[in-house]
Amino acid sequence: MIDLIGFDADDTLWENEQYYTRAREEFRALIGTHLITGGRPEGAPADLDDLIEATERRNLRYYGFGVMSFVLSLIETAVEVTGGGINSGDIGRLLAIAKRMISAEVELFDQVEDILADLYGSWPLVLITKGDLLHQQAKVDRSGLSRYFAAIEVVADKTPEVYAAILQRQGVAPERFVMVGNSMRSDILPVVDLGGLGVYVPNAGTWVYENVDPPAEANGRILHARTLADVPEVIRGLGMER
Amino acid sequence: MIDLIGFDADDTLWENEQYYTRAREEFRALIGTHLITGGRPEGAPADLDDLIEATERRNLRYYGFGVMSFVLSLIETAVEVTGGGINSGDIGRLLAIAKRMISAEVELFDQVEDILADLYGSWPLVLITKGDLLHQQAKVDRSGLSRYFAAIEVVADKTPEVYAAILQRQGVAPERFVMVGNSMRSDILPVVDLGGLGVYVPNAGTWVYENVDPPAEANGRILHARTLADVPEVIRGLGMER
Repeated sequence: MIDLIGFDADDTLWENEQYYTRAREEFRALIGTHLITGGRPEGAPADLDDLIEATERRNLRYYGFGVMSFVLSLIETAVEVTGGGINSGDIGRLLAIAKRMISAEVELFDQVEDILADLYGSWPLVLITKGDLLHQQAKVDRSGLSRYFAAIEVVADKTPEVYAAILQRQGVAPERFVMVGNSMRSDILPVVDLGGLGVYVPNAGTWVYENVDPPAEANGRILHARTLADVPEVIRGLGMER
Repeated sequence: MIDLIGFDADDTLWENEQYYTRAREEFRALIGTHLITGGRPEGAPADLDDLIEATERRNLRYYGFGVMSFVLSLIETAVEVTGGGINSGDIGRLLAIAKRMISAEVELFDQVEDILADLYGSWPLVLITKGDLLHQQAKVDRSGLSRYFAAIEVVADKTPEVYAAILQRQGVAPERFVMVGNSMRSDILPVVDLGGLGVYVPNAGTWVYENVDPPAEANGRILHARTLADVPEVIRGLGMER
């Protein structure tokens, strides 16, 4: 029996990583000309991506997840790699990227509303998303999807403890909870760790940080859905309709 | 009758604005030497504070409240006022200020724990704080005070709607709620607007954004406490012990 379905938002219900990918491309174009590493211009873009990624991961403990964290890490990477070669105008362009990302329209994936409306008729749904509080709430508002959710939880990170607290507030045992999302690391494994089920919906654009291999103990607790449109069938295939 | 007491955190239970004040001073020292406005060096510091404040307010709709928002606004102000004169090293120093602010120890005000322990024996307490999700949660953890609170709510802004949603989750009518805080704008007026009571605890260091004059309609719904230590007496003086 399933008593509650959780949905991730970014890259599960709507586009997200593509904005980061585009920002990284712009960063490479902007910063590449100022690089002090020298001697291997053809290697610079890939190196820069690695440097951004390393800075982002190092800064998670200060800034958490989200656009502000990302752009602060872009600025930090720019300062580090240019050795003074970056100018105010370039920094201003990075700030403009942050505001553009935060202001972007929400682009829903195909059939999202039909899928939620379908499941909503059978189970209560909760939305669980990590990132900047204001931006995540704004995206939920812009999506027009909030009416399908019994609760909308913006969290700083998606750990087993965070899911346990949400399930306690909802009065649902972990083994009666299934979480749907594109991130093995954030959406699936912590829920499986608690004793719940995960429906993994791969997304080619997912941030590399979110891709981890599930351990053998997770066998049988992770269901794969080829696309979001397959999620209702996968969940109903569990024979767990209430 | 009071059924629930809400507490603000920053500048009500612990120091906060002093870190921002120190950061603004460092910003003035750092940026003052690069100013392009010219011709009135003695006026520059005050002008800079006004420019920071204007940038912060303009950016609230993108970044919300908190250290990341503040430092992004410092960087934006630096880009604007120096016309290219700021260098990577200075930007790096602004990023270091952000990390220092986020990592700072929590400095509780005098007698905070005694005051909470006292009230906790008579009423359920909730902590309601606005700012960056990760940072605010980290401060609550570092404070050691979370055990006194039935709920800890980190919110993007403190509007009547946000308070109404919290009270609904707690199952408390607004007229049975009293909110304690240093910000007339964020802690007191939205609660009074809903029909609740506010206990205003002034703090000389409060950010100017948070200081607004209460309207005449708020008469009789705002109680003043000279210091946090006076709050239990003020609330008990209402004759509203359950």
